[in-house]
Amino acid sequence: MMFQDYFPIYSKLTPAQQQTICASASYRSVKKGTVIHNGNLECTGLLLVKSGQLRAYILSEEGREITLYRLFDRDMCMLSASCIMNSLQFEITIAAEKDTDLWIVQPDVYKGLMQESAVVANYTAEMMATRFSEVMWLVEQIMWKSLDKRVAAFLLEEISIENTNALRITHEAIANHLGTHREVITRMLRYFQSEGLVRLSRGGVEIIDEEKLEALHDA
Amino acid sequence: MMFQDYFPIYSKLTPAQQQTICASASYRSVKKGTVIHNGNLECTGLLLVKSGQLRAYILSEEGREITLYRLFDRDMCMLSASCIMNSLQFEITIAAEKDTDLWIVQPDVYKGLMQESAVVANYTAEMMATRFSEVMWLVEQIMWKSLDKRVAAFLLEEISIENTNALRITHEAIANHLGTHREVITRMLRYFQSEGLVRLSRGGVEIIDEEKLEALHDA
Repeated sequence: MMFQDYFPIYSKLTPAQQQTICASASYRSVKKGTVIHNGNLECTGLLLVKSGQLRAYILSEEGREITLYRLFDRDMCMLSASCIMNSLQFEITIAAEKDTDLWIVQPDVYKGLMQESAVVANYTAEMMATRFSEVMWLVEQIMWKSLDKRVAAFLLEEISIENTNALRITHEAIANHLGTHREVITRMLRYFQSEGLVRLSRGGVEIIDEEKLEALHDA
Repeated sequence: MMFQDYFPIYSKLTPAQQQTICASASYRSVKKGTVIHNGNLECTGLLLVKSGQLRAYILSEEGREITLYRLFDRDMCMLSASCIMNSLQFEITIAAEKDTDLWIVQPDVYKGLMQESAVVANYTAEMMATRFSEVMWLVEQIMWKSLDKRVAAFLLEEISIENTNALRITHEAIANHLGTHREVITRMLRYFQSEGLVRLSRGGVEIIDEEKLEALHDA
C-alpha cells in the first residue's frame, strides 16, 4: 500500500498532479513519543497517517498541555502546515502516541496544488472543517462540562481506542490531555475508585464499571 | 457601494460567476439584537457585513453563552452556512450587536462556485482559517488565563471598538461574552473598582485607569 492508496482524492487529480504530490510525500516511521511537529510557526508539512496514533495539542507558557484531537490510520492533518494558508495563526504540537508510519507532504508543493485545483482546495477546506469541529467540541466540553464528566469521557475514549479496560496511563498524562493538573486528576480518580468505577494501580487505571462510568458521563 | 465592492475576490471571478454570486446575495438591514443565524443546523448562508457589528457565540443547554468572535465592516463569515461543507459539524448563533447592514449569500449557489473555482475554494478556506484562529485564541484564553485577565482584555477590546471609556454594558452581557456567570463578573468588577481601574454605575462600566488595566492584562 502506497501514498496513493491512502490519499483520499488521489483519483480526482490529473496525472501531472498525481506525480507531483507523490514525489513530494516522504515516508517516515517514528517511535512513540517522537514530536513530529513543534509549534513555533515551523511548517512541517501535511501529515497522512498510514498506521499508528498521533496527538495534537497546545502548550501554555508554563508547560501545561491540552489535547485538541488525535489522528488514527488514514487520517490527514494540515494544521502542521500552517504556511499553506495566511490566516492560520496558531501553533500546535503533534507527537506520536504510538509507533507510527506516516507520510509528510511538502507544504509548498501542496500549496501550489491547492491554488491550481478546486478539488484540492475543497478537500483542504473539509480537512480543516473536521479539525475545527473537533476543537469546537473541546470548547463546549471545557465550558459546559464539569471535570468528572470530562475524565469519564476520556477514560471511555481510551478503552475504545486501546480495546482493553486495563489502561496503562499515568495521572500526569490524563492531566495533559485534559488541560489540568496531575493533583486534580489524582483526586478525581480516587473519588472514582471510592465509587467503584475504577481500580488504580502504579501507572495504570482499570475501568471496572463501564456502565456506571457512562451513566456519570451522560448525567 | 454594492456587493461587488465588498466581496474581496470579486475581481478574480469570471463574468458568469460574478453574475451568479451577485444574483444570490440578498441585502438586509437588521436592528441591534436581531438573531441572524440560529444554530440548530439551519443553513442561513454566508454573511458579508457592509456596516455594523455582529457577534458569533455558542449556547449551552442551560442557556449560558460564550462569544467566539465578532464581525465588523467588510468581514465575511461562512460558519452560518455549514451546509457548504460536510465536515462542519457544530452550531453557532450570530446576532447583531449594533444595527447592521449586510448581504446574505445563498449557500447552495456559493457551494456550486466553490466546487468549480479554486479561487473561491481557497478564499473559503482562508475565511475558515481566520475563524479557526480566533477560536484557538479563545481556547488559550479559557485554558491558561485567569478570569481577571480575561475581563481586562474584554474591557480593553470594548473601549477600542466603542471608542469611549464609558461603556454602556451590563454585567450579564459581559458574563455572556466570557462564558461565565453574572455574579462572578459583578464580583470581579467590584474588585477592579476597589483597585481604581473602573467606576461602576447602573448599566455602565467606566474605565478610569486604562494603563493599569493593560498592566493587569499583560502581567
